[in-house]
Amino acid sequence: MSEKIKAGVIGATGYAGLELCRLLLMHPQAELVAISSKSFEGMELSEVYPALYRETEERLCDSDEVIAKSEVVFGSVPHGLSEEYARKCVDKGAVFIDMGADFRLSDPADYKEWYGGEYKDAELHSRSTYALPEFFKENYKACDVFGNPGCYPTSVALGIGPALEAGLVEKKLVIDSKSGATGAGRGLSQNTHFAELNEGFAPYKVAAHRHTPEIEETLTRLAGERVSVTFVPHLLPINRGIVSTIYADLADGVTEAQVRAAYEARYEKARFVRLLPEGKIANLKYVKHSNYCDVSLHFDRRCGKLIVVSAIDNMVKGAAGQAIQNMNLKFGLAEDAGLALIPPAF
Amino acid sequence: MSEKIKAGVIGATGYAGLELCRLLLMHPQAELVAISSKSFEGMELSEVYPALYRETEERLCDSDEVIAKSEVVFGSVPHGLSEEYARKCVDKGAVFIDMGADFRLSDPADYKEWYGGEYKDAELHSRSTYALPEFFKENYKACDVFGNPGCYPTSVALGIGPALEAGLVEKKLVIDSKSGATGAGRGLSQNTHFAELNEGFAPYKVAAHRHTPEIEETLTRLAGERVSVTFVPHLLPINRGIVSTIYADLADGVTEAQVRAAYEARYEKARFVRLLPEGKIANLKYVKHSNYCDVSLHFDRRCGKLIVVSAIDNMVKGAAGQAIQNMNLKFGLAEDAGLALIPPAF
Amino acid sequence: MSEKIKAGVIGATGYAGLELCRLLLMHPQAELVAISSKSFEGMELSEVYPALYRETEERLCDSDEVIAKSEVVFGSVPHGLSEEYARKCVDKGAVFIDMGADFRLSDPADYKEWYGGEYKDAELHSRSTYALPEFFKENYKACDVFGNPGCYPTSVALGIGPALEAGLVEKKLVIDSKSGATGAGRGLSQNTHFAELNEGFAPYKVAAHRHTPEIEETLTRLAGERVSVTFVPHLLPINRGIVSTIYADLADGVTEAQVRAAYEARYEKARFVRLLPEGKIANLKYVKHSNYCDVSLHFDRRCGKLIVVSAIDNMVKGAAGQAIQNMNLKFGLAEDAGLALIPPAF
Amino acid sequence: MSEKIKAGVIGATGYAGLELCRLLLMHPQAELVAISSKSFEGMELSEVYPALYRETEERLCDSDEVIAKSEVVFGSVPHGLSEEYARKCVDKGAVFIDMGADFRLSDPADYKEWYGGEYKDAELHSRSTYALPEFFKENYKACDVFGNPGCYPTSVALGIGPALEAGLVEKKLVIDSKSGATGAGRGLSQNTHFAELNEGFAPYKVAAHRHTPEIEETLTRLAGERVSVTFVPHLLPINRGIVSTIYADLADGVTEAQVRAAYEARYEKARFVRLLPEGKIANLKYVKHSNYCDVSLHFDRRCGKLIVVSAIDNMVKGAAGQAIQNMNLKFGLAEDAGLALIPPAF
Repeated sequence: MSEKIKAGVIGATGYAGLELCRLLLMHPQAELVAISSKSFEGMELSEVYPALYRETEERLCDSDEVIAKSEVVFGSVPHGLSEEYARKCVDKGAVFIDMGADFRLSDPADYKEWYGGEYKDAELHSRSTYALPEFFKENYKACDVFGNPGCYPTSVALGIGPALEAGLVEKKLVIDSKSGATGAGRGLSQNTHFAELNEGFAPYKVAAHRHTPEIEETLTRLAGERVSVTFVPHLLPINRGIVSTIYADLADGVTEAQVRAAYEARYEKARFVRLLPEGKIANLKYVKHSNYCDVSLHFDRRCGKLIVVSAIDNMVKGAAGQAIQNMNLKFGLAEDAGLALIPPAF
Repeated sequence: MSEKIKAGVIGATGYAGLELCRLLLMHPQAELVAISSKSFEGMELSEVYPALYRETEERLCDSDEVIAKSEVVFGSVPHGLSEEYARKCVDKGAVFIDMGADFRLSDPADYKEWYGGEYKDAELHSRSTYALPEFFKENYKACDVFGNPGCYPTSVALGIGPALEAGLVEKKLVIDSKSGATGAGRGLSQNTHFAELNEGFAPYKVAAHRHTPEIEETLTRLAGERVSVTFVPHLLPINRGIVSTIYADLADGVTEAQVRAAYEARYEKARFVRLLPEGKIANLKYVKHSNYCDVSLHFDRRCGKLIVVSAIDNMVKGAAGQAIQNMNLKFGLAEDAGLALIPPAF
Repeated sequence: MSEKIKAGVIGATGYAGLELCRLLLMHPQAELVAISSKSFEGMELSEVYPALYRETEERLCDSDEVIAKSEVVFGSVPHGLSEEYARKCVDKGAVFIDMGADFRLSDPADYKEWYGGEYKDAELHSRSTYALPEFFKENYKACDVFGNPGCYPTSVALGIGPALEAGLVEKKLVIDSKSGATGAGRGLSQNTHFAELNEGFAPYKVAAHRHTPEIEETLTRLAGERVSVTFVPHLLPINRGIVSTIYADLADGVTEAQVRAAYEARYEKARFVRLLPEGKIANLKYVKHSNYCDVSLHFDRRCGKLIVVSAIDNMVKGAAGQAIQNMNLKFGLAEDAGLALIPPAF
Repeated sequence: MSEKIKAGVIGATGYAGLELCRLLLMHPQAELVAISSKSFEGMELSEVYPALYRETEERLCDSDEVIAKSEVVFGSVPHGLSEEYARKCVDKGAVFIDMGADFRLSDPADYKEWYGGEYKDAELHSRSTYALPEFFKENYKACDVFGNPGCYPTSVALGIGPALEAGLVEKKLVIDSKSGATGAGRGLSQNTHFAELNEGFAPYKVAAHRHTPEIEETLTRLAGERVSVTFVPHLLPINRGIVSTIYADLADGVTEAQVRAAYEARYEKARFVRLLPEGKIANLKYVKHSNYCDVSLHFDRRCGKLIVVSAIDNMVKGAAGQAIQNMNLKFGLAEDAGLALIPPAF
């Protein structure tokens, strides 16, 4: 048997970082060799998350130690910090998979507009790829910096991508997304204080969420022409999962059968996309704790619309699971190594 | 002091019926004189709902007794049954307020298409009104049969009505609504079994919900021309409340200020609609257990869209509260008699 | 009609303070004349809690202004601060109702041991009363400082008090209580971060909660001899409500009928305690948003135990509602003025 | 590599049955060869539970087919049905693991009193064992019928067992348990209707739950003398997990150090029991979706009590996981084969 891949996580105590650790600890062909955290340096991970008690004795160290020990480094840190880590990784020959936004947008102007920062290391960006494996894995071999997609963009691209690729819908979309509270992260806020979120529901950052340019860039790339989206995210009083309800005008003369055929062709070999049979509706419940994206297709004949519902677990396919899927593909493992997780039904 | 209005409820043990009873029991100018239930006839209401223990000693009787004792009868029964009750009421000079769908659609063809039944008593319909008081109360004096609006149509009409009335938006809308579980009623189903709905989220009846024709008829009436909607409801794992996120294309040249001004004018005197200040977002949490509809306005400048978020408590403004508001108006009471309920913040 | 009582709230933006404001705003014989908050001074209450939008235009001022304007002042502040406010109130002839712990314990040594502070103003304590109205209202006329009971002690004393008063049970109790998250207050913490509390459940401060001495003092007073309790609170992933499950050994020869008779006699005239019929079980659901305490009696014949289940809304009967009940009694209003709230069933 | 164990599930569409299927499908050394269901015979499992879409193509067949194909059969059916299935299994040389109550009680009189039935096949019971592996696995080799423990008894025995075995506590216990809604099963009821359970909390079957005799028998066996318990279960508005809070009087002269030492010794080699360090409290959140039982020890010095908190996932360690643990031990696999599940922290 070949040796295990040495994997490290920078920012291991955020929610995405923790889920990465958990999945890597259960991965048969990877080994979690080092983890870091600014806030909890020196502590054991299980002191921060008692769920991991006795599962690992790794102590949280600093990022340099993570980079020194790892062949692949996952960076789960706020935007603006990843170029430095990525540079150190590629200089020592390691792969860097960024969970944040620093390698997702190809246009520095978009990054500046939505995130307020600059790309400083252009060479790094030239060797990076937007790592949505169902659509863009042809670049994986050549690249060693991976921009792991955002949770909303993943749900949207997997939902409407095939229709855009095949030219079956118009290029102005309405996207109404709903996310569980882990998407808001571990940081405390009044909005995510239990008594205030529980039994509440509302949109936030209406038509102003930072994932908007990432969604538009990805969909434009898939469509081969400019796609614009009205994107409204909502916060669900549950822990995990995203449902995106995507509204598109069918192009002239397009039939329902054509749409379904395009999706079937596109996802025939996709290990982690489940195109649901006619009559079924995607539900985040049925993908939770798995790396699946469920997609269901619906038609409003009265209005000539295609309505796509996509559901993912924001922490898995929307973050840690997809990052490991990317690692698997980059390192030549089975795409689902460590990810053959059957979602619980309740 | 004048005597209290004698009110009765047919179908008192469904969720809307129960909420009616509760609000009527606390109403200073109405008296709950009789209640009926097919399923629980002969029992006390508090045997079905222990929350009402010692609040009332009314026993559930049959519908004829309710009609005999009441000046106003609320019918909270499945569609298809209300014409009979309404006829008995008007024949004895009582007012009938229908919580179901039997007096909401003006076109019998729509009723037949979406509900599968026939209007049998045309005279009744000629003396009935669609009872959304913020827009249509001019007919209340003449009519004695009231079609209390559906929960989704209430949230939608209050949300987008002013923009349509003022001709500020195009006539094709996308409406993405999310409702708490009480909307699905008291009847048991796998979908609303706790372990299956909890921590789950999905749309249902995608572009096929029976409230669609009611929404379109109401919006068309407000716009003065044909409005068509793509309407997708979702089921939230919470008890109460509806958020509707409504997407409309701004008509050519319309400014944000014009839109806001139209809403301000329209709702200046509306006791139960709160137009939120700029920068605030409607949240169902903040209207729960009250008769309010909160409305917030948002603009996607990049795409030329108006996005309206409206939030109601589906059991109050979406059902029992609005019915009592209608009773108050019909009987000349203060519009908010028994409805001056301040929503709890948690 | 007589004039309304002028009421003020110090600490109006905490959860108990806010619930006080809400209930006072709906109270027919009281007027909320001033509110204060250290953290939000100068803002309108509805800026902190959008649920109150348009309900009041009161701005948050400082505590002196509250005291100056009010006949009754509710102090909803951390322990250690209330003596000062109480002194100012009584000096100007106003009543002070303390929502915190500063006037609950009669023995300064208990206060020092569990809260770490000193009683500085002995005269104040001599004119104060522990304000559990179902048991101790005989002192209300003479006193002008009221120590509003804690939420857990309220649920426990109303649950087991009659059995202790009548000498029907032994004096060593096990009390297993479960509280909703509003009991932990508005302050942010990892424990009450949505994603961490939701779908979680555990005890906290096992046998070490500060309400323990208050429970023991109250029960001892009712029993007429020393009562000791093992008290374990748990945090429920819901917003409101406390259920206390209380285990007591029946005294020798005591029958179930004797126990039930004692409770019936004790609560015959209690407006806000509902002794449930045999076979029913108290559920916090059925008292939420009301001032009720539901009590159910159960017997483990195999082990000779009385098991009492009591349920309250921790924000109402466990805090703001009880405080208003105390105000009503002190000012000679009907005990349920402003508190005739029927709990919603869902 | 050796061949996989052929496993079948009778009653695969109940919650415990489904969780068994899910865990077996992910088990590296077992193969799910057949599943049955009375209610859904002929359907694919994923038609009943969309979470399993594309995970298995097994159709639900009848119980005879399951028995014919399997080396080990899990029976997840209502009590009273398992003797027949067990007999068929042992006659063909297969192992039968009963998820229900038919092989848990050694005394037929207890079974009759609490379940209302008779043991008909005494020989079967003579070859059966109560299958709580942490305490009783010495019988596994000889037996081929396994009575998988109930969820509450598992949480209680693992919680207080070591103290009773070592004679450190008195023999009258108070056990206050709280369970998630999956414990109530897939069957619909008003109690588990979403809008009624959500935001509610109460005990049920107070001192009258059928798990009582199983708890007492198991604890008596561990203590070597008669143990009696007052057992009150509560229903939590969450999906999964049980917390049992167990109150015991320390025996004369017993120290905290002795208690801790006894637990440490007892669980030193227990793969699935995590004795938490001093100062930590067991929380069902931290064991969810895993086979762990977390146990924390607390002392009420004022009252001389040991308070044990134990937490399990009722569907895993309380049902399907423990059953697979039993299969692993019976078939000589690693105890944690297919069960090395790290609980998610959120």
